[in-house]
Amino acid sequence: MTFELFYWPGLQGRGEFVRLAFEATGTPYVEIVQGTGPGQGVDGLMRTMDDPARVDPPYAPPFLRVGDELIGQTANILAYLGPLLGLVGEAPRTRRWVNQLQLTLADLVAEVHDGHHPIASRLYYSNQRTEARRRTADLIDYRLPRFFDYFERVLVNNPQAGGWLSEGAMSYADLSLFQVIAGLYYAFPRAMSGFAKAYPRCRAVHDAVAREPLVAAYLKSSRRIPFNTTGIFRHYKELDRATPF
Amino acid sequence: MTFELFYWPGLQGRGEFVRLAFEATGTPYVEIVQGTGPGQGVDGLMRTMDDPARVDPPYAPPFLRVGDELIGQTANILAYLGPLLGLVGEAPRTRRWVNQLQLTLADLVAEVHDGHHPIASRLYYSNQRTEARRRTADLIDYRLPRFFDYFERVLVNNPQAGGWLSEGAMSYADLSLFQVIAGLYYAFPRAMSGFAKAYPRCRAVHDAVAREPLVAAYLKSSRRIPFNTTGIFRHYKELDRATPF
Repeated sequence: MTFELFYWPGLQGRGEFVRLAFEATGTPYVEIVQGTGPGQGVDGLMRTMDDPARVDPPYAPPFLRVGDELIGQTANILAYLGPLLGLVGEAPRTRRWVNQLQLTLADLVAEVHDGHHPIASRLYYSNQRTEARRRTADLIDYRLPRFFDYFERVLVNNPQAGGWLSEGAMSYADLSLFQVIAGLYYAFPRAMSGFAKAYPRCRAVHDAVAREPLVAAYLKSSRRIPFNTTGIFRHYKELDRATPF
Repeated sequence: MTFELFYWPGLQGRGEFVRLAFEATGTPYVEIVQGTGPGQGVDGLMRTMDDPARVDPPYAPPFLRVGDELIGQTANILAYLGPLLGLVGEAPRTRRWVNQLQLTLADLVAEVHDGHHPIASRLYYSNQRTEARRRTADLIDYRLPRFFDYFERVLVNNPQAGGWLSEGAMSYADLSLFQVIAGLYYAFPRAMSGFAKAYPRCRAVHDAVAREPLVAAYLKSSRRIPFNTTGIFRHYKELDRATPF
C-alpha cells in the first residue's frame, strides 16, 4: 500500500500537516504533483479531484489516495493515519482527545489564514490590506493568546511526563502544534518573541518536534518547502506587532 | 449513561448540530445551561470548561460530558455519537467519509459566521458592517455556490438510493446539511430562493430531514431555539442578495 498525497505545489499549506506525519515516522509517500507521468502533476490532482464519476470526491486538497479510496480534510486524514503510523495512543478516548486537539488547531489555522484574507480567499492580499491589518491586530492581541492559553493549559495538566499534548508520547497533534508555531515564527517574528516567552511549554513542543531526528532531517531537506507568501502563514511586515504583554 | 450537552443559552449555534443528532434519534440528553442546580446554568458551563484541574478541557462549547470524559469540537462529538445513535454506517471507510463531509460543512459554517464577523468575533456586527457587506457578497457569489456544487455532486454520485449523502440512510452529515440550509433560508432568503432551485438534491435533503417525524416534532417544540441575530446564521437585510445565476 502506497500513500499518495495530493496537494498544491510550491506551498506548505494544509498539506504540511500530513507531510509531517509521514516524515516524522519515516513513512514512504508519493507527492502526486511532483510526478510528470499520466495522472500526476497539478493536472493529475485536478482530474482526480474533479473526476465526475467519483463517489467520494474531496472538497479540496490535501487528500490522500489509498487503494481506490480518497481521504480528504486534514484532520480526517490524520485521524486515519495516526493509528497506522503510531502517532496516537490506542484507547478510543485518547483518539477522541487528539482529534479534538487537532480540530482546535485547524480552527486556529483558519483564523491565521483569514488574518491576511479577511474578505475573500479569491482576492489578492493587496485588495484587502486595510481589513487585514484590523483582523490581524485582533488575531495577535486576542485570538492567539486565547489559543496559546488553551494549549499551554493542556500541556501543564497532562499527567504524563514528556511534555507532549496527549499521554507520554508525541502524537500528530504535537506535530501540528509544531507546524503552527513554526509558521507563526515566520509570519509574526515580533509577536512570537513575546508568545515564546509567555508560553514555554508550547515552545518546548515546537523545539522537541524540531529535534526529532527524522523531523530535523526533513526540515533540512529540499522536501521542506520554505515558508512564503502564498501559504497560510505569511510574513507581511506591516501585519506583525508586539504582543499585548 | 446520560449525555450532558454544554452549550450557550439563547442561540442554536454549533450546539444545534449535536442537538439534532439527539432529537432525530429520540435520545435523551440534558442541557446543562437550562438547569438551576449546582454545576448547572451558564455558571456550571463556565466552571466545567475552565476547571483548572481538568486534563481534557474543551476549547469552547459545544461539549459533551459522558461519565468523567469531556468531548469537545462539534465534528468530534458527532464522530463519537454517530455510531452510538445509528447515524453513520458501520464500515470504517463510511465513517471516514461522513467525518470528511462533516468537516467540510464545518468549514462552510465558519465562513458563514465570518460573513457577518469578518474582522473580529469579539466586536459587534455594527463595528464591521462595511467589511461584512464585502465578505458576504463574496460568500453568496462564490463560496456558497462552490460548497453547494460539491454537496450536490456528492448526492448525485451516491450509488445508493434514498437521496442521502452517504449510503442509503440518513447520517449525521445529512442532519448537519439540513441545519446549514435551514440557517441559510433564515439568513439569506433572497439568495436561498436561487440556491434552492439550482441545487434540488441539497434542498431535498433539507426537506426530507425536516419531515422525519422526530425532527418535525422537535422543530415545532419549544426546545428548538428560533434563529436570531446572535447565532451563526443571521438575517441582516443589507447582506442578503440575489444569487449570481
